[in-house]
Parts: sequence; structure tokens; C-alpha cells
Amino acid sequence: MKHISILGSTGSIGTQALEVVRDNADLYTIDALTAQENYKLLIEQALEFKPKLVVIGNTDHFDKVKMSLPDFEVQTGKSGLLNAVNLPSTTIVLTALVGAAGLEPTITAIKAGKNIALANKETLVVAGELIMGLATSHNVEIIPVDSEHSALFQCLVGEDYNTIEKIYLTASGGPFLGKDLNYLATVSKEQALKHPNWAMGAKITIDSASLMNKGLEVIEAKWLFGLKPEQIDVIVHPQSIIHSIVQFKDGSMKAQMGLPDMKLPIHYALNYPHRITTSFPRFNFIDFPTLSFLKPDREVFANLGLAYQAMEKGGNMPTILNAANEVAVEAFLKDKIGFLEMSNLIKKCMEEVEFNVTSSIENFVDSDKKTRIFAEKLLNS
Amino acid sequence: MKHISILGSTGSIGTQALEVVRDNADLYTIDALTAQENYKLLIEQALEFKPKLVVIGNTDHFDKVKMSLPDFEVQTGKSGLLNAVNLPSTTIVLTALVGAAGLEPTITAIKAGKNIALANKETLVVAGELIMGLATSHNVEIIPVDSEHSALFQCLVGEDYNTIEKIYLTASGGPFLGKDLNYLATVSKEQALKHPNWAMGAKITIDSASLMNKGLEVIEAKWLFGLKPEQIDVIVHPQSIIHSIVQFKDGSMKAQMGLPDMKLPIHYALNYPHRITTSFPRFNFIDFPTLSFLKPDREVFANLGLAYQAMEKGGNMPTILNAANEVAVEAFLKDKIGFLEMSNLIKKCMEEVEFNVTSSIENFVDSDKKTRIFAEKLLNS
Repeated sequence: MKHISILGSTGSIGTQALEVVRDNADLYTIDALTAQENYKLLIEQALEFKPKLVVIGNTDHFDKVKMSLPDFEVQTGKSGLLNAVNLPSTTIVLTALVGAAGLEPTITAIKAGKNIALANKETLVVAGELIMGLATSHNVEIIPVDSEHSALFQCLVGEDYNTIEKIYLTASGGPFLGKDLNYLATVSKEQALKHPNWAMGAKITIDSASLMNKGLEVIEAKWLFGLKPEQIDVIVHPQSIIHSIVQFKDGSMKAQMGLPDMKLPIHYALNYPHRITTSFPRFNFIDFPTLSFLKPDREVFANLGLAYQAMEKGGNMPTILNAANEVAVEAFLKDKIGFLEMSNLIKKCMEEVEFNVTSSIENFVDSDKKTRIFAEKLLNS
Repeated sequence: MKHISILGSTGSIGTQALEVVRDNADLYTIDALTAQENYKLLIEQALEFKPKLVVIGNTDHFDKVKMSLPDFEVQTGKSGLLNAVNLPSTTIVLTALVGAAGLEPTITAIKAGKNIALANKETLVVAGELIMGLATSHNVEIIPVDSEHSALFQCLVGEDYNTIEKIYLTASGGPFLGKDLNYLATVSKEQALKHPNWAMGAKITIDSASLMNKGLEVIEAKWLFGLKPEQIDVIVHPQSIIHSIVQFKDGSMKAQMGLPDMKLPIHYALNYPHRITTSFPRFNFIDFPTLSFLKPDREVFANLGLAYQAMEKGGNMPTILNAANEVAVEAFLKDKIGFLEMSNLIKKCMEEVEFNVTSSIENFVDSDKKTRIFAEKLLNS
């Protein structure tokens, strides 16, 4: 029986994780559920899954949640979030919150010796070296939930990471695959929110359309698998069937495949190192007689190049990239800026916000804050 | 340093194995080389690789080989072959001979505690249960060299074989992919010997054109990976880039990929469990922007169905299938029968040669002999 705390239980990954738990009630117990805003769904989830601890991030909603769940331990704010990863019975924490907010609870969970099912890529983007070092010293497993990184992780089971020659992260290409800059200059958020293959939250769907999601994944992969930037490549694969590929030093390659369904990597991460039978729909070659591949267009999708630049530069540059992108996506979703202006905003932040190489949480939190302030100023100027 | 005995060193797999050895002289020592007929090449190979033992199968050539290699230990016949797998220093035996002749030396090698790099699929087709049981009781590894089985073996590194749901063996489809029975009735051996992707020996190239090679591989896979017939599927993949696929019980799939080059699985088998850096050409998605898949046509390629029948029937039926096929291919290569008559001959042997379920080498050798006699009689009637 796995005892799970889910951070971000009302989001796309969180709700799919609870579907997995519902279908396998004999395998899982929910220890804690947390949500930032969606208190109504959080209350419903708590009544169904009966966690030991319920945390509503936004303190404004605390009274409503407490009133609806009189028999539950309900907490709020950052301290609630940190308590949710610290319950003695918990064996694995699913970090499914959005953005850099995942950093502190992930660190707390690792220090408490909990394995991490990592669905918050920003944690590794911002503080990959630190997080992986902590995981090693606390003898904790970081099991990726992102479909691409789960694919790589699965391909590397039983293999020596030192024999990796390179990896290919596959990208669907998103809704704007094949479009040019003129087209992108005019796209609406409604168009950007229509992902061809994956049903995901708004932030990551926009990131997929702009290829920033792939850029963040490149940085995430660097830390998860101990790679150099030149070992990481991106290939567009519109069908999203091959989820990523490892090429070994002998020239052999291994790919993980399947229907695009996040429940599979969630289920895998929660059960690793075991594979437990599921009734998820199976992939069938006859339904996908052709799998195709093409190079990403780095001229049109500037974010991918920006992410590689940030990775190569190191220090707090990925933090700046990530914070600027979070502000940019929010502004785009609020119709404040156009699709292409997101890259411009990120680029300016990377040029202007103070660069340093101090690897500490305080520095990353500070750089994150400074970038957001600078980006907001640019938006309002 | 790996000490290798190569059975069948002048064939397609044997010569490619020696190329691998030549390029990695610091990794490998050749203990023994054996060939059935091609004494000229065997002499050249011996002079280059300086094995402890040279075996020429056909005794007619013994004097010529002995005269050209005065400083070498040269032997002949079956006893020579059995001595070649029994040298004390040898750690791994590459079984690259053609047909059912691989059975006895493989058994002798296993009993001598040598790991087996298995390139002779007929050994498992004829006596899979026996061979795998012997390997277990002698604590010996059977590492497949066939590209498809090497692919599956690599995908299963670090995985529990009990979590296999099914496997897909990929088939290029051979030179007659998409053709109908009328066309196949008229094809020449020259057409059948032109494989689109793989450079191989004559027997296996004809088997590829008739899909018998895939049928034999299905039976080989059953024994290597402990599968039931219904867990084994075949999918045609004309580019021969994905070499096979494992589907696990959780729905996840792993595929091994690469350029169609037998040197890679040979190198992998010789070095397993390690992956050693090679300079083999690498696969590039940009050169293969489309990978396609289709169902094999079982009406046109009857051999595939015959192989499934033999596997399901068990006992000596795979032996009958294999022996009848060896006779049929030889007859086709000698222009004695047409392409489609091969399947007819095999079918008749499967119907008429005495079926039994005694699992002993004597029985398999006997069934093999009886089938060949019956098949030759059919050919000459």
C-alpha cells in the first residue's frame, strides 16, 4: 500500500492521479491533498478520498473548507503545504503544483525522506543541481511524471547512466506546428489552448504551443539524468506516441511508447520500481500506421533557443527564464500581450536581470522575485 | 577481455562478428573459429585472428586447411565442432551456424558453462524448452543476436519478465511486401535474394522473403522470454528501424531502435551486460522522417501461420516445420520448386510426419531426419 500526498490535487495531474487512485483502491491511500484556489473540488476530493490532512493554499478559502469538512484536519498557507509533505506515514509525494511554487515543498519532502513523483518541472529548472544533490544525500528517489522524462526514466531502467550518448525529447509541436512568425503574431489564447494530443492545464498548454514547455523539459532532463547540454536534442513527433528516446554510447537506442495519456506515467511513478497491471486503453499500431519526425523550427519558436541558452549559462539564468515565462504566460492568458511578445519579454529579462552563479535556494527565490518585478514593470511600461 | 569461440565464422554473422572484433582488439580474443565449407576464408581468418583451435566441418577440406596452417591446432567434423565450444579459456560462444546443426554444439557449450551469443535461431525453434532449461540449470546466459530478439532483450534489461503483456516482432516485409499470390507464384530466387534492408546469408534471406524467418523468430521469442503464443504479435515495419517492441502489463511499451546493422546486436551480445562505445554509424530521425507499420498478410505469406500452428502444437512440430523449411529453401535455391511450393511442402510435412511430444534431443534429431527424408521424397515424387 502506497501512502501518497498530492500537492496540487485539483489541477490536471492531480485529478488524473486521483482517477488512478480511485481505480486501484487496494494499492493506494491518500495521506494529504492540497490545492491553491479550487476549494470546491478540494472539498469533494477530501470527502471521497478521506486524507489525514487537507490544505487550501489561499487563506481566503480556509473557513469555507473547514466548515465543509468538520471531521478533517484542515490547514492553509505555506505552513500547511509543508506539513502536507511531512506526515510520518507518507511514502511518496506527488508534486503537481504549477510553477516555481513547487520548490520549497519538494525540498521539505526530500529532507523528510519521502520519494518524489515529480510533476512540477519548474523545481528542477530552477534548482536542479541542489534538488538532485539533496535527493542523493537523503537517499530519495526522484521519479519523473512528465511523459517525456518518464519515458527516458523507463528506458534507463537497468542501464548505466554513464552509457547515455544523447537523448531525444519528443515534442508534439503543439497547435502551431508548421506555422510562421506572421501567423503566430496574430494567434489568440483560445487557439493556443487547443493542444492536439494532450489534455493539460492552461499554463503548460500555452508552454506547449510556444515550445517553452520543451525548453523547460530540456533543462529538467539535464538534471534528472546528469547530462551535458549537447547531449540533449529535441525532435518534433506530431502523433505523441513515442514519448522520448535514449541513444547509448554503443549506438543502440531505446524508446518508450504508448497512447498520450498522463495516467500511465502517473501510475508508473507511483508504483516504481514495479509495473502494476492497468486497464488503460492500449496502443495499437494499426491505429497509427505512420509515426513521423521533423526538426523543431527554432526561428519561429524562439523559446527553445532561449531555454538552451539559459541551460548553458547556468547559475540563476534558468530561474530568470522560468519566472519571466510564468509572468509572460499569465499576461498572454489575460490578453495583455501577444503570443510572440512572450519570447521578447523572456529575452529582455534574461538580458537585464542580474546574473549570478550562487547555488542556493535563497538566491533562486530572490532571482525569481526580481525577475517577476522586472517583467511586470516591462509589461506596464 | 572476452574469449570468444565463433561457430560459423565464414557466414554473414561470423564475418561481421570478426569485423567487430577487429575494431575492438583490446576487448576480444578469438579462441576458436569453425566453418563448414569455406576453407579459404577460414584460413585467412585464422591467420589474422590466431585462434587456439581451427575447425573445418567438411572433412574433405581438412588437409588443405592443415597444410596452410602448420602452426595451428586444426580439427574437423562434429568432434572438432564440439571441442571448439569446450576450450577452458572460452567465456562466450557465438553460435552463427545455419540451421538445426547448431543444436548439439550449443548444448555442449551450455553444459561446459559457456555463455551463448545465440545467432542460430533454429536451436531454440527445435529444442527451446530443453535449451532454456539447461541454461538455467548451468547458470548460463543466452543472449540473442537476432536483431529483433536483441531488441526485446535490451528493452527487458532491469524489467521483470512476468510484467510482459505482449511483444511485437517487427518484420521488414522483405522484397515481396504488398505482392499477391499470383506474383509470388512466378518469382525467381534472384528476386527473393534481394532483401531491401539487411545483408544476410542466402537461407535467412529466402526465409525473410517468405516470412518463415519471422515465423521462426516467433517461436524463438516464445522460449527466450517465456511467453505464450497469444502474447507474440508480428507487425510489418518496412524501414527496419524499430527492431521490436515490448508491451508491459501497465500498458507502457518499450522499443529498441537503430540503423539495420547486425554489428550492433553482435557487439551488444558479446559485451552484455555492459554497453561499450562504438563508432558504428548512428541513426538520425532526419534521414527517416517517417516510420510506418502495417499488418502482415497471412493469406499471401502462409509460412507465418504455419509457424504459429507449429508453436501452438508444440512437441516435435517446430522441428518438423524447421526441417521441412530447410529442405524447401534448398530446393528453391536450386530451382527445383517455386516460391509458393515451399509453404506447400512444409504444410504436407506437418500433416504427414509423425507427431509426438517427447522432449529429448534424440527425438528432435530423429524428427529432423524423418522430416528431411519425407520432404526429399515429396520433392522427387
